[in-house]
Amino acid sequence: MENLDISEIFKAREVLKNVAVETPVVGPTNISDRCEVYLKAECLQLTGSFKLRGAYYKISQLSDEEKSRGVIACSAGNHAQGVALGATHNGIKSLICLPAGAPLSKIEATKRLGAEVCLVDGVYDDAYEKALELRDKEGYTFVHPFDDVKVIAGQGTIGIEIIEQLPQTQAIVVPIGGGGLISGIAFAVKTLRPDIKIYGVQAEGAPSMKKSIDEGKRVHLDSVSTIADGISVKEPGINTFEMCRKYVDEVVTVTDDEVAAAILNLLEKQKMVAEGAGAVSVAAVMFNKLPVDGKKVVCVVSGGNIDVNILNRAMTRGLVKSGRVTTVTLDLSDRPGALSGVCKVIADLGANVLSVIHERVSTSTQINGCVIHMELETRNNEHVAEIRKGLEDAGYSLITEIRNKG
Amino acid sequence: MENLDISEIFKAREVLKNVAVETPVVGPTNISDRCEVYLKAECLQLTGSFKLRGAYYKISQLSDEEKSRGVIACSAGNHAQGVALGATHNGIKSLICLPAGAPLSKIEATKRLGAEVCLVDGVYDDAYEKALELRDKEGYTFVHPFDDVKVIAGQGTIGIEIIEQLPQTQAIVVPIGGGGLISGIAFAVKTLRPDIKIYGVQAEGAPSMKKSIDEGKRVHLDSVSTIADGISVKEPGINTFEMCRKYVDEVVTVTDDEVAAAILNLLEKQKMVAEGAGAVSVAAVMFNKLPVDGKKVVCVVSGGNIDVNILNRAMTRGLVKSGRVTTVTLDLSDRPGALSGVCKVIADLGANVLSVIHERVSTSTQINGCVIHMELETRNNEHVAEIRKGLEDAGYSLITEIRNKG
Repeated sequence: MENLDISEIFKAREVLKNVAVETPVVGPTNISDRCEVYLKAECLQLTGSFKLRGAYYKISQLSDEEKSRGVIACSAGNHAQGVALGATHNGIKSLICLPAGAPLSKIEATKRLGAEVCLVDGVYDDAYEKALELRDKEGYTFVHPFDDVKVIAGQGTIGIEIIEQLPQTQAIVVPIGGGGLISGIAFAVKTLRPDIKIYGVQAEGAPSMKKSIDEGKRVHLDSVSTIADGISVKEPGINTFEMCRKYVDEVVTVTDDEVAAAILNLLEKQKMVAEGAGAVSVAAVMFNKLPVDGKKVVCVVSGGNIDVNILNRAMTRGLVKSGRVTTVTLDLSDRPGALSGVCKVIADLGANVLSVIHERVSTSTQINGCVIHMELETRNNEHVAEIRKGLEDAGYSLITEIRNKG
Repeated sequence: MENLDISEIFKAREVLKNVAVETPVVGPTNISDRCEVYLKAECLQLTGSFKLRGAYYKISQLSDEEKSRGVIACSAGNHAQGVALGATHNGIKSLICLPAGAPLSKIEATKRLGAEVCLVDGVYDDAYEKALELRDKEGYTFVHPFDDVKVIAGQGTIGIEIIEQLPQTQAIVVPIGGGGLISGIAFAVKTLRPDIKIYGVQAEGAPSMKKSIDEGKRVHLDSVSTIADGISVKEPGINTFEMCRKYVDEVVTVTDDEVAAAILNLLEKQKMVAEGAGAVSVAAVMFNKLPVDGKKVVCVVSGGNIDVNILNRAMTRGLVKSGRVTTVTLDLSDRPGALSGVCKVIADLGANVLSVIHERVSTSTQINGCVIHMELETRNNEHVAEIRKGLEDAGYSLITEIRNKG
């Protein structure tokens, strides 16, 4: 492992002073009634995520000779934009390898920041291979998204800002993908304020750092799957693994549904747009995964670059998870014409009907087979249970659909 | 008109010091390439809008006798939550009249802040009548949403904050519904910094203040219609009309599509959730409605309380307006089996297909009548034009659909 000194993080801070935004710590919020939650809003950072800090600082510290050769990186997301802006500001050339299927909006954003874009057929791993190949062939300097001490030092500036902005902080909750963000924050905070707890959060479908710490060695996952694509990383870095082992108090995981509920809460209640990776810290506190009762907790909302269509889907899942929208499917086979009766039960229980699909079912055992699906606006999960019970009490048969479970 | 003195706004500021958030001024943003745009993020205010400021200050200044009788207000939105929180903090009772059709989420939010809710059959006007009736019968103090000097003084604290947070401000752009917000800001700013321009923005479908100023007298609109429901007001107040005449440099209007594009820009680029009323200021700058070229401009994003479903629709409209999503409808009557040809043209021009509906049209003049509707992800309006031309050049007949025009 390379060495990191706290003075490097203060140096990074000076370098970033006129580039990166000192993002606000927002709160206290009403996210939890067990603790006082504040948000370090890195979604309000330039390029929409913290990645700018590490990439910019790394690039600023290259030798003139390295700068003259330009930089290369591989990313479909935040790191791409951080490197592009960092390189452009420093007046040097950047080339970003992206998988060809990346969303148009991300490709456009990267180009707008001044990078040249190289679209590579295949998935992320193919683009990564291509970047290394071009580095070796063309002499570019490779900027690693997390496993680099200069990159980690850049991210660590967030730790300094938090303890200055909210000195009474007792715990900081940080998303973990490759581990660059939490390594920087944990190193800075444990050096300056060892009384503050540092917790890491991973997606349940991509728990590479958690597994690695549990097993005491770096673990490589064969596959990862989560809506929090920004932290969908198969293996921690060498440096970041060692720093997390040393400085992080605990790592927990959250499910995709919990992430969706956190995205929705941030959007609706805090008026803040978070991507999945940015919302896992909030999800961990909302769903009581951490020992922070009664504490002043800062959740790092690490980024806000979420595709509009994915945001849409997350909002829908979040509404279902929190019992604000539910679907019921009823078998009306033996009760022809019963739709108005169903509607009355639902109206009496104070839910709004959002949509109805009424269909003849040809695969039913009965000739008059008939099913209705209804989407309802509801208050919360208790209200959902009340409505299901009300329908059953009125004699209707509910068909359970696994996909609609909260 | 009642009198307002600048000392009252400083007093309001003291009262609000430990209650309202001093919301950040975010920027400079990339919203316009003609001027430097900053955002006064009142969507990050407690209760999600600036309304808390005026309502809280008004309630705090009531006599003990008035407080003991409780307050009443009529609102389906931000004012309701402002009054509820203001009353609860001051330890007094509040009753909010809401039209019975108001969204569950708004009713719940108002209750959670400690208000009693009275649902009134009918629309806003019916709820307003009911509130006045209850005031007269039960002795509540009525808290007007805008036409009250104390309420205006509370909103004016935003003006003081802006000139302190960004002293180099040259223009401030403010949404106008009834005019309370802009009256407070304009009065404060023109008193302390008369060099700063104050511009007001209304929805094209609810231009009551603009019309009133143009005609030199308060105008009552028979109907109003806009997605910016928070500023959908039929008639300005007596006080606010006089103050706007005196202190506001110009009032302009924006269309619903422009508002939708502004909501989308704030969401995607600034990671900020704005409701329609909160986004009109940004829309006016994005679509060059104001003489602010080369200036440092602060847009007041007045609130973020947007219903998730409406946000969804605004996102879709905003994507269409900015050429990021488009739909094409093609008549394939004379070219059976031509779907793959169409897909190739679209792929070659670099658009992504989001959805396809392929249907036999029974009303067509031809027996084999067949139409396809495609929803495409595109880069911008130029790209949309390129694709339409490409399809026509390849011999396909495009059917123009008015509803899809950008």
